[in-house]
Amino acid sequence: MKIRELGERALIEHIARLLSRPVNKVIEGAGEDDCAVLDIGTDRYLLVTTDMLHRKTDFPSRMTAQQIGWMSVAVNLSDLASKGAMPLGVVMAMGIPPDTELSFIEEVVRGMDECASTYGTQIIGGDTDSHDELTMAGTALGTVKKELLIRRSGAKVGDFVCVTGNLGSAGAALLALDKKIPVSQEILKALFEPAPRINEGMALANSRAVTSMMDISDGLALSLHDMSKASGVGFKIYENRLPVHPEIRTLLKGREHLEASVFTGGDFELLFTVAPEKLDKAKKACPLTVIGEVIEMGVFIEKAGRVEELEARGYEHFKKLD
Amino acid sequence: MKIRELGERALIEHIARLLSRPVNKVIEGAGEDDCAVLDIGTDRYLLVTTDMLHRKTDFPSRMTAQQIGWMSVAVNLSDLASKGAMPLGVVMAMGIPPDTELSFIEEVVRGMDECASTYGTQIIGGDTDSHDELTMAGTALGTVKKELLIRRSGAKVGDFVCVTGNLGSAGAALLALDKKIPVSQEILKALFEPAPRINEGMALANSRAVTSMMDISDGLALSLHDMSKASGVGFKIYENRLPVHPEIRTLLKGREHLEASVFTGGDFELLFTVAPEKLDKAKKACPLTVIGEVIEMGVFIEKAGRVEELEARGYEHFKKLD
Repeated sequence: MKIRELGERALIEHIARLLSRPVNKVIEGAGEDDCAVLDIGTDRYLLVTTDMLHRKTDFPSRMTAQQIGWMSVAVNLSDLASKGAMPLGVVMAMGIPPDTELSFIEEVVRGMDECASTYGTQIIGGDTDSHDELTMAGTALGTVKKELLIRRSGAKVGDFVCVTGNLGSAGAALLALDKKIPVSQEILKALFEPAPRINEGMALANSRAVTSMMDISDGLALSLHDMSKASGVGFKIYENRLPVHPEIRTLLKGREHLEASVFTGGDFELLFTVAPEKLDKAKKACPLTVIGEVIEMGVFIEKAGRVEELEARGYEHFKKLD
Repeated sequence: MKIRELGERALIEHIARLLSRPVNKVIEGAGEDDCAVLDIGTDRYLLVTTDMLHRKTDFPSRMTAQQIGWMSVAVNLSDLASKGAMPLGVVMAMGIPPDTELSFIEEVVRGMDECASTYGTQIIGGDTDSHDELTMAGTALGTVKKELLIRRSGAKVGDFVCVTGNLGSAGAALLALDKKIPVSQEILKALFEPAPRINEGMALANSRAVTSMMDISDGLALSLHDMSKASGVGFKIYENRLPVHPEIRTLLKGREHLEASVFTGGDFELLFTVAPEKLDKAKKACPLTVIGEVIEMGVFIEKAGRVEELEARGYEHFKKLD
């Protein structure tokens, strides 16, 4: 069987099964959550996450070098954010075509540094290597107080389903670029310079109101399915509650809205569940929108009064090359 | 200016200068040593290192999938070893061509797992991504007691210069493959399944006899120059003291010996300096060979009674593609 036929999620599960069972100090191991979680013998867990990005697949041609650097750090910080962690540092391995101009790499490094600084952390190390295609493999470290760690797996039936920020901005920007429709810098930035929700993640963890959390960079639909699997529950969300930027309401037409908000991915927002009696506490932590509720099983969306199953479709490596 | 013209070491220095200055808790930051070193508020430092490897550049065609996995972990563990650290976990981002057979990736993962297990650690997370060329970007975490951390920068004039194991085995294997000369499995393994000196590194740190240390995977000559720069001292080594595997004495001819032992790289041995009065302590920690001494400045080699400058030449990305 080829990797292409298996797809990313099945591959990750398969790899995780091949690995030795984690020892006690590994609280979450490979394939289990957005970050690996280690007990380092203090009152805080150490969290680690890694993401590899490539020129052709992950950096649209209109992205600047500075935005490539920013994105390479942001994608890792977003995983830390989803566990409520405080960033500790980022290392970046860079595969660089030898004919690249030094000034281009300088801009990439400035973007990396800027993103790290913006979220209270820094680039602490890395590796450079000659490679045909620009490849950025970042690893972010963070810590979280042991009693505040939020996993994908804590959602309970009756909890509210919430998201930070707006949905579909990155997807709308992608569509606008494809169709050559003019679009504001703000919307383009949602795609090219996404803001990882580090501060919101930490505030939500501190609120102790959140029962499960993950980021939705692969799209809301896939993330709901991932969380459903991890928590052993189902979800029902409402199309008319999905928060959308006003510009996108006019930019997109008909089914494009749902496609961008739910399936395309690229929004670096947090998806989380909140115990009903603690919703006020969560609202004090950061702006949020309640988009649905946790149910027994299945993943559903209510559109114009009709309830439908929500497909497990979104941004997935390997598959999307078919 | 193109990256190719600058070369790897100058690029890393340049990138490090572009980054924000590390805050207090970062003990060693980007470009300073084999690992980044973080103060996490316990009696141990946290160490982080990352390395990206590629099919074409780093995995000779005769390497098995299992060996590719082993190497991708070993290269990172070797950096931990050079700081005397105990491994805590490894994350691996894998860029995989979609047409790769699943069985091939299974073997890669088994090799990763085997290498991690052999050195008392494990694969705790990762990322998979579609990519034209198989690309493995690993990050290893480790810890070391604060008072036992060994840097590149502590060598003192009069110290002995020492190495673990043999030099030139990887280089000889490479040469033998190039020239299609038959060679033993043991020598091939030095190239394809190098053994990171984790246990030796920890034992040397515990001996408190070592003043500076790094690994020599880029070759002894480049490593001596790196350490000379970091420590502000010079080195004199003796060709006739370089430890060489008996098979290689007969396999290589004339100048090939020096080329393989000093310049080619690929040996995952440790280079370290020892205070003269503590040499016995270091010898109790692990088998070692004294190959020279620390001097005021310059890097020299004595060959057949004649002292020559030792060129700063070895395995360097970008440059070697010229």
